[in-house]
Amino acid sequence: MKTVLRIDASIRRADNEVPDYNSISRGIASTFMDKWQRLNKGHRVILRDVGMNPPAHISQDWIAAVFTPEDKLTEEQRSLVALSDTLIGELEQADIIVMSTPMYNYGMPAVLKAWFDQVVRVNKTFSFDLNRGDYPLEPILSGKKLVLITSSGEFGFGPGGIREKWNHLGPHINTLKGYLGVDEVFEINAEYQEFGDSRHTKSVNDAHAEANALASRLSHQLEPVDA
Amino acid sequence: MKTVLRIDASIRRADNEVPDYNSISRGIASTFMDKWQRLNKGHRVILRDVGMNPPAHISQDWIAAVFTPEDKLTEEQRSLVALSDTLIGELEQADIIVMSTPMYNYGMPAVLKAWFDQVVRVNKTFSFDLNRGDYPLEPILSGKKLVLITSSGEFGFGPGGIREKWNHLGPHINTLKGYLGVDEVFEINAEYQEFGDSRHTKSVNDAHAEANALASRLSHQLEPVDA
Repeated sequence: MKTVLRIDASIRRADNEVPDYNSISRGIASTFMDKWQRLNKGHRVILRDVGMNPPAHISQDWIAAVFTPEDKLTEEQRSLVALSDTLIGELEQADIIVMSTPMYNYGMPAVLKAWFDQVVRVNKTFSFDLNRGDYPLEPILSGKKLVLITSSGEFGFGPGGIREKWNHLGPHINTLKGYLGVDEVFEINAEYQEFGDSRHTKSVNDAHAEANALASRLSHQLEPVDA
Repeated sequence: MKTVLRIDASIRRADNEVPDYNSISRGIASTFMDKWQRLNKGHRVILRDVGMNPPAHISQDWIAAVFTPEDKLTEEQRSLVALSDTLIGELEQADIIVMSTPMYNYGMPAVLKAWFDQVVRVNKTFSFDLNRGDYPLEPILSGKKLVLITSSGEFGFGPGGIREKWNHLGPHINTLKGYLGVDEVFEINAEYQEFGDSRHTKSVNDAHAEANALASRLSHQLEPVDA
């Protein structure tokens, strides 16, 4: 049985009376999930909606708690790291992470960064050892795939694009992927939202088609070899 | 009279009983501010501590409100954008922005991204016009200087450094600077915090010295020509 962790970061809903207000990235993630679930009946899906339910910000006391050995934690510290425990627990169970996120101001929505700050945690998702020299951090988890679905108002954020250097969303998540245990990333990007023209329509349609095809492809890849 | 807007983003305080727990970036910002205030008595300072008082996350209703003409806003919408109005008001008054921030997970703390998401706002800090073609956004504010003070656990995030490509903090803020009205950026970086060795001590000491020297330099630059 495979487990998909779906994380949605848009602060827009997907069920507005005016469909134009709906989140584009959520919509594309739903296309992926619908296909995935048709092909993988009975497999597990964990939903984590950080757009609608933003994770708390980490704090100085949170940092102190995560550096305290488990058996020395006070009750107050345990409750401070409870959300982090939950979010990391969800991550640990995932074979595939489907992360849908808009680009806000050329980077992650603050709510998604709050999720990363809760999840990247010493002795849980990375180990730290100064004996490793200038690269003391190493990821703990591994073997997961990330389907990263983004939507942006402008365009040209890919390699060689006119706004490549302004893209602090995909490249940032790629820098962090190891701490999620991700070995392989599949990125689907819808662009041009602000322009509202035929380029936008094409970009969104293409993204849905890619999501649909990718769900099939990953379903086949992840079939157990002895099935 | 000149106005400095000081923004602190660390979730660490500067007054811990154990000084090692204190925020490094806050400390360097204080060195800058102490010198600045000695040289510019009677000038204004606005404090905005997003580390200790995180701005609310923007929401779908917030987006709807900022796209509503001012005279059509409901009372509820006015209260939704009140914080954004306040933060932008502070920005508008600033001649110099002193922004101190740690690097968390290779980017901004979520609390600082929440500030940017409140401040980058249509018809307030940028205008939008599709007649401009593929670059429809233009900044509204201008003429400000940004002193960006960062602290990171690792090192080599600068141009040519071993972790240059993992730096999603300074480059991201540089992409956004126009929307703050910033024409010129002065960056001061303390590195090596995780290593706790002599390289760290030197990096922090150098950063304090740079902050001190920069406060003098900017004080002279900003003196009115007819003074």
